[in-house]
Amino acid sequence: MARVFNFSAGPAVLPEEVLKEAAAEMLDYDGSGMSIMEMSHRTKTFEKVLNDAEADLREIMNIPDNYKVIFVQGGATTQFAAVPMNLMSANKKAAYIETGNFSKKAFQEAKIFGNARVVASSKDKNYTYIPDCSDLPIEEDDDYVYICENNTIFGTKFHTLPNTKGKPLVSDQSSCFLSEPVDVSKYGVIYAGVQKNVGPAGLVCVIIREDLIRDDLEVLTPTMLKWKTQVDANSLYNTPNCFAIYVCGKVFKWIKKIGGLEEMKKRNLEKAKILYDYLDKSKYIATARADSRSIMNVTFRTGNPDLDAKFIEEAKKYNIVSIKGHRAVGGMRASIYNAMPKEGVIALVEFMKKFEKENLLWKHYV
Amino acid sequence: MARVFNFSAGPAVLPEEVLKEAAAEMLDYDGSGMSIMEMSHRTKTFEKVLNDAEADLREIMNIPDNYKVIFVQGGATTQFAAVPMNLMSANKKAAYIETGNFSKKAFQEAKIFGNARVVASSKDKNYTYIPDCSDLPIEEDDDYVYICENNTIFGTKFHTLPNTKGKPLVSDQSSCFLSEPVDVSKYGVIYAGVQKNVGPAGLVCVIIREDLIRDDLEVLTPTMLKWKTQVDANSLYNTPNCFAIYVCGKVFKWIKKIGGLEEMKKRNLEKAKILYDYLDKSKYIATARADSRSIMNVTFRTGNPDLDAKFIEEAKKYNIVSIKGHRAVGGMRASIYNAMPKEGVIALVEFMKKFEKENLLWKHYV
Repeated sequence: MARVFNFSAGPAVLPEEVLKEAAAEMLDYDGSGMSIMEMSHRTKTFEKVLNDAEADLREIMNIPDNYKVIFVQGGATTQFAAVPMNLMSANKKAAYIETGNFSKKAFQEAKIFGNARVVASSKDKNYTYIPDCSDLPIEEDDDYVYICENNTIFGTKFHTLPNTKGKPLVSDQSSCFLSEPVDVSKYGVIYAGVQKNVGPAGLVCVIIREDLIRDDLEVLTPTMLKWKTQVDANSLYNTPNCFAIYVCGKVFKWIKKIGGLEEMKKRNLEKAKILYDYLDKSKYIATARADSRSIMNVTFRTGNPDLDAKFIEEAKKYNIVSIKGHRAVGGMRASIYNAMPKEGVIALVEFMKKFEKENLLWKHYV
Repeated sequence: MARVFNFSAGPAVLPEEVLKEAAAEMLDYDGSGMSIMEMSHRTKTFEKVLNDAEADLREIMNIPDNYKVIFVQGGATTQFAAVPMNLMSANKKAAYIETGNFSKKAFQEAKIFGNARVVASSKDKNYTYIPDCSDLPIEEDDDYVYICENNTIFGTKFHTLPNTKGKPLVSDQSSCFLSEPVDVSKYGVIYAGVQKNVGPAGLVCVIIREDLIRDDLEVLTPTMLKWKTQVDANSLYNTPNCFAIYVCGKVFKWIKKIGGLEEMKKRNLEKAKILYDYLDKSKYIATARADSRSIMNVTFRTGNPDLDAKFIEEAKKYNIVSIKGHRAVGGMRASIYNAMPKEGVIALVEFMKKFEKENLLWKHYV
């Protein structure tokens, strides 16, 4: 069939030209006579792929020299453990901001290894907003402050970073990675599972301020979970997810080609505005509080679960797929990541109008 | 260029028909209108890919019902930690058999978490053989006995499993996985990084006897390293390496199609015989002791490092690539995994004959 408009929250839509290149090179990468998948990670050819990926990522994000970049396996979920294992020092204390499912899981994992506590939460309203983080009860001996910057399930995003009172900020950017420029110097650690906005599942980019990379960890840590292991080995301590690094490298080049993160942000804001502007004047209910809205994951409901189900089913006829919301929120979720074309959002809004006209007589608040 | 004969030790050659299918499906998997890389791991379509992969692997290996199969990230190197973390009980004791680089690394990792000790080693002769393991000093309170079944770097393989005196045998089968039938019931745990004989890097198959899967672990273990986490979640606790599972699934189907592991073994033995028979009557030096030879990784030298270098360089003209031996052994290594066609081995032997005639006057033993 034709390509669909794929609103999946992750793994998610990738740039079509990247997929086409990967297909064309599948039996012979760059004249090597083999697939990138069949090639030793110790070859000059693969090392160039890896080094180019890092260099392009550094350029795109304008990563300062005192930050290291590693490409590791295990998903963000493995980083939930790596963060406390690498950062908790003698006091083993950390402050977590709970804004959804993933920050909650990260917090629970951190509690295995030390004294993690929640210093702000939006649980009271089912994570529909980002709490005020201007004056948190951060303590002198906290090792770090942790956030999940964009909440895939709940459709919210930190638009202002928390005041960490001088402590390193650790941010899980999985679902907003490379969606807009960020000032890396404001973070201690940024990490992102690439499968939402950048590439195929099975790879995490971790960006770490040099002074936070230690060897003398306080807890017994598997060698593979020590950031220092892969920092020292240029991500080649063992065989990495070569294919994912290769695809991400292509996506980084695609971002550069279209004009970098400023242009990416412009396009993402434009797409999000089309959708939110329509949502706000429609009979649909936007789930996230206006000041906390994500530009990557747009959550909304009809107000009636039966109509939600009807919406999801009928949308398929218009090539609009994977738009069902997470069960924790219900309704619909349109993930409009970097690679979602504007045409996809316009097609969605057109369908939403049609469905509204045929099915929604008033705003149902349930 | 044309496809080469790729003797890489890993990542390594894959069946050409599998690569062609993956390329053809890159923009639209099974009528979904998206790549398998763009699809949520929670979709019915991907769950079928995953469940088929497990079912096919179970069928190919004849895995008994009391064994669980999980597909995880992090490479065999992460399992070096997972093994002691999951298996060491109150006594935290384990017996390791050291037959090369990877068993040594596994042993060193285990020492972080408990009392691991080497009960047999072939280090005395640079790991050129598999030691006699018929009567090892295994103790009553050892939690397990550990081997690396095929030693990629040194070209050796256990042809007889060790007598573990009733303790569970843990085997890293990365470089011989699915090369021949094995009796799974003789093992406690089998695991394999798939990138040597089965698929793209970034995926490990772990096969675990049910009674060895525990929740009450003795050391603080990251949730993602607990085998139980992925066993309970059918490998979907978090987003897995979907693309690698998909490619491995295709390779499993390819193995079934050609006749399963009996046929695979027949082909592999035939290829290895062509190479070893020639080696034994040639002026090249086969590195591994005859009774310990791997049928996957064939290591040999000219006896003169300059001639080795010349061999590796000249071989490229005949489309024979990635044949340089590991620095720990020197010389050459021909990895002739499942997907290496017999024609590749014949081409190699033809080149070796030519090179021998032109360059080797006698066996150099250095």
